[in-house]
Amino acid sequence: MLIPKPYLLFLGEAKDALAIKTASGIYQWRPEWCKSQFVYDEAKVKLDLPFQSFQEAFSNDIKTMVIGVVNAGGTLSDRWKRSIIEAIESGLNIASGMHTRLSDVPEILDAAIRHGVNLYDLRFSNQTFSTGKGIKRSGKRLLTVGTDCSVGKKYTALAIEKAMKENAFKCEFKATGQTGVLIAERGIAIDAIVSDFISGAVEWLSPDNDSDHWDIIEGQGSLFHPSFAGVSLGLLHGSQPDAIILCHEPTRTNMRGVDTSIPSIQECIDENIRLGKLTNPNIRCIGVALNTSDMNSDSKELKSKISKENNLPCFDPLTDDLSQIIDEIRDI
Amino acid sequence: MLIPKPYLLFLGEAKDALAIKTASGIYQWRPEWCKSQFVYDEAKVKLDLPFQSFQEAFSNDIKTMVIGVVNAGGTLSDRWKRSIIEAIESGLNIASGMHTRLSDVPEILDAAIRHGVNLYDLRFSNQTFSTGKGIKRSGKRLLTVGTDCSVGKKYTALAIEKAMKENAFKCEFKATGQTGVLIAERGIAIDAIVSDFISGAVEWLSPDNDSDHWDIIEGQGSLFHPSFAGVSLGLLHGSQPDAIILCHEPTRTNMRGVDTSIPSIQECIDENIRLGKLTNPNIRCIGVALNTSDMNSDSKELKSKISKENNLPCFDPLTDDLSQIIDEIRDI
Repeated sequence: MLIPKPYLLFLGEAKDALAIKTASGIYQWRPEWCKSQFVYDEAKVKLDLPFQSFQEAFSNDIKTMVIGVVNAGGTLSDRWKRSIIEAIESGLNIASGMHTRLSDVPEILDAAIRHGVNLYDLRFSNQTFSTGKGIKRSGKRLLTVGTDCSVGKKYTALAIEKAMKENAFKCEFKATGQTGVLIAERGIAIDAIVSDFISGAVEWLSPDNDSDHWDIIEGQGSLFHPSFAGVSLGLLHGSQPDAIILCHEPTRTNMRGVDTSIPSIQECIDENIRLGKLTNPNIRCIGVALNTSDMNSDSKELKSKISKENNLPCFDPLTDDLSQIIDEIRDI
Repeated sequence: MLIPKPYLLFLGEAKDALAIKTASGIYQWRPEWCKSQFVYDEAKVKLDLPFQSFQEAFSNDIKTMVIGVVNAGGTLSDRWKRSIIEAIESGLNIASGMHTRLSDVPEILDAAIRHGVNLYDLRFSNQTFSTGKGIKRSGKRLLTVGTDCSVGKKYTALAIEKAMKENAFKCEFKATGQTGVLIAERGIAIDAIVSDFISGAVEWLSPDNDSDHWDIIEGQGSLFHPSFAGVSLGLLHGSQPDAIILCHEPTRTNMRGVDTSIPSIQECIDENIRLGKLTNPNIRCIGVALNTSDMNSDSKELKSKISKENNLPCFDPLTDDLSQIIDEIRDI
């Protein structure tokens, strides 16, 4: 999947930072692909990019508009539909990770055909999968897991991959969500897979490899999230990780989108280890990745406290030196 | 979904009893709908029904051929395709729970249109779901869980529903698999749901109800099965059961289709209780349902041993008196 670049990022109503995490993820990790943004007037958050209309974007040689924001309730509103069609009529390709397939919306498909642009539905592929087998595969695997959704599992995996590459490891980031797929330009949006094939799809995504090769697999959800724990468990079983890193956002009090409270770090590590042993008895946790972006106070003390309590390195993958965690990985 | 009856059950190559569990499930619970079977010469197992060709079936007023056997590898073989088309050309409707949608196979769709018959793809519906919310709903719920796939979760749920109805309970069997959907003529094949919506789909399937109403929810897979544990966990969280019954097949040594060994009954109960507490802190196990159909020896001693070890009633739901378990349910 190679989407024509550069991109106009569509942010729509952009209610909060988490709602635009696809846009900000691409911008963070592939800034060279992102030239401008499109937002509605009432948007609460924006990126540090020029604003452009669809016409302006096309005139400035932008090739694709990427839907970089979560659609509320998972349905495509009429307003978005009109905007997408307008972007198509201006000559832009459209890339989307929505559960609604662009090409399933007759007016959008029709506009795309008339204007000769492409629709990229990242959550869907023609790949078929087998059910998981649970057999140990060669090569090594690291999975990022979390106390909640949207706590930094993707950023942590990408930061670890970057640091490992700088340290001459053979490794590859394996995307399991729409933003990860946009960043890596490969992978599977695991939450769009038919549920019978969750672990089987991950087995396909991270096949046998050289004994010193690491797949750095992007985690999803949380074993403690009542909406998505099934996805997290299938991903854990299919990944059969040798190492996990627990990702946590310390300002969060409730699970994203529900009333459930956040589990403790220790509880969450223990649960992943316990359940992960089914497909890899040697699974171990090698660190805690702290997403400090929303902390007002200095995070040093908290990191030191978490590190002591769990007897593990605790670090912010975006701002801290990762040599300690790289050493942990080297030891496996 | 009302499929025209009666049925010709298609058993294909019928490798073993588990492969034809859809056919035998419908025949066990809805014998009045099943008039005959179609099998290939090499079939290893059959039902106690007359054999008929497609033509004979149609001449004998059979309305629908139901695919009652698992297709190996989940793909539709050319041989099956030819048989299905032949059945259509003989005038039969087709009902299938395969992951491959009948109407996605051009030759089958084409034949159905030409001959004016209907295709029933039980694994698919146009229903859209929300992600799970994890909020406690009114009414009561019983979920059957298992040490493995295909150990009797559906039969147990149906037997419990039957016994509860005989005891004047307000209750309803909620199907979550293709065979259950065929028997109940409603429900959701949960393994065909996009993984983001597993628990949300179960919340939809078993909504708020009267405080004395019981949903008897058919379980799927096992928390210890490396292929399907994610589905089982999503189903557990979405069901938020007040009571679980652990289903077990004592002659099984390995998990169905994989190399993983079967967990102990106690381990499996504990795991379901532990993880189920996320959405219902009052979850409790009220019994062990033993599938004794493959036992050569008398099962009385084993049931008594399991009952003592786990301090729970242990019974075969198809052959034993269920009054003790009904009393347990009454107490909740």
